[in-house]
Amino acid sequence: MDIKGLIIDLDGVLTKDKALTPFPDSQDFISFLRKKNIKFKIATNNSLYTPDNLVKKLNKNGIKIDKDEIITPLLVIPDYLRKKDLKELFVIGSEELKSFFISEGFTVKNSTEVKAVVIGQDKDFNFEKMKIATTSIKENNAEILALNKNLITKDDDGLLFPGVGSVASMFSNATKKDYIHFGKNSDEYNKKLFEYFKDTPKNKLGIVSDDLFTDLKPFKDMGIFTIFITTGKYKVKDITEDFKPDLIVKSLSEIVDKLS
Amino acid sequence: MDIKGLIIDLDGVLTKDKALTPFPDSQDFISFLRKKNIKFKIATNNSLYTPDNLVKKLNKNGIKIDKDEIITPLLVIPDYLRKKDLKELFVIGSEELKSFFISEGFTVKNSTEVKAVVIGQDKDFNFEKMKIATTSIKENNAEILALNKNLITKDDDGLLFPGVGSVASMFSNATKKDYIHFGKNSDEYNKKLFEYFKDTPKNKLGIVSDDLFTDLKPFKDMGIFTIFITTGKYKVKDITEDFKPDLIVKSLSEIVDKLS
Repeated sequence: MDIKGLIIDLDGVLTKDKALTPFPDSQDFISFLRKKNIKFKIATNNSLYTPDNLVKKLNKNGIKIDKDEIITPLLVIPDYLRKKDLKELFVIGSEELKSFFISEGFTVKNSTEVKAVVIGQDKDFNFEKMKIATTSIKENNAEILALNKNLITKDDDGLLFPGVGSVASMFSNATKKDYIHFGKNSDEYNKKLFEYFKDTPKNKLGIVSDDLFTDLKPFKDMGIFTIFITTGKYKVKDITEDFKPDLIVKSLSEIVDKLS
Repeated sequence: MDIKGLIIDLDGVLTKDKALTPFPDSQDFISFLRKKNIKFKIATNNSLYTPDNLVKKLNKNGIKIDKDEIITPLLVIPDYLRKKDLKELFVIGSEELKSFFISEGFTVKNSTEVKAVVIGQDKDFNFEKMKIATTSIKENNAEILALNKNLITKDDDGLLFPGVGSVASMFSNATKKDYIHFGKNSDEYNKKLFEYFKDTPKNKLGIVSDDLFTDLKPFKDMGIFTIFITTGKYKVKDITEDFKPDLIVKSLSEIVDKLS
């Protein structure tokens, strides 16, 4: 196992809840990668926090990283919006998400007169928002832009809810218009991710994630070494015939042992 | 045009808003059908009102019909629930909808410990309901039961929102579990509808509706004479190559003229 570059999932891998509480061995893992000169990027679908705040919170919680060591959908979508001249947005998501788009120079409106409906996680989702989004898309031809294509998500209280991708597909079904996303394995996201690793050969790249289906399998298909960690939402019993990860570990420390 | 039985859509055909305000010629149309001995059934996907209240409101608004002249998803779903012994329900929908299930002997719970998630139109839809529904389905294997499969719906303020079918498909995507529905063209609904017309040959049956795609086309495929009325959500320009109705009218009075 000769790994020179590592893609690291965040939720369920380095952190265990929405407050970004780290696992006990998360910082040791990062320190080990630095010592071994293994280039890494924390690749997340998180859209609750801005990239800046995500880095701040992780550092405060003891996971010491720089901003260029992280990639989130919010580091990807602004380029797309500018390229397509989509300036006026209806945003389904946290107040922090709305502030992010405003700080990036976009206009966030609570009306159907917009060019795009941006969909992130939203604990204040309601009927009024459904109406504004649907009408913007159907009557004003607004684009449907999902921050990721996650099907299902777990809240801190243990309850499940439809992921951003499932919410986007509801609007897509209603309006008969496709949605595009900016999460892991979207064209835009992966382009940015692999630019970062452009000096690392694909066969020296690894990924560690708790998500068998939307993370590990697609990266395996690209020839990347896949490490399945069971600290997150899936367990060993969830592995199907369809895809076997290259390595299964119970903790980040176990990866350190293997790479030492 | 020899019509002996007529299926009549409600919303956009006999009535024009959620308060069930009739078009000026609605009652004359019903009176004409009675005089000509044309057997009719008002077939709606409405799940905001109980069948009893729907009949009461129509009568009060001047459309004089009996309960056996109407069919709604709520006249169909209780049999299914009893047959499958699904007694405990989480209901997404109006307070009237919840009361209906209670009056039919079911237990309506605001928890994930249920056997089925019943989905109707809900102007108080929110994140909390999304969590209870998703968790019930994924963790407790609750069935996803949609009252109809409408893709999109228009509110009285002119804004559009995802139809019951689109909301059901969101939960279906999130949980990787299919949903079934009880609206027009579901097995259960059509079985009840065609029992009513069992003495009328299919080639003497007609349908009048404002919905080209989910109403008229499937009934045309069954050999039923299709009358497209442009008083509702679709216009003549919405007709595609895929399906041409047998007759296009601008009002119910025009049908009276043709059938006289």
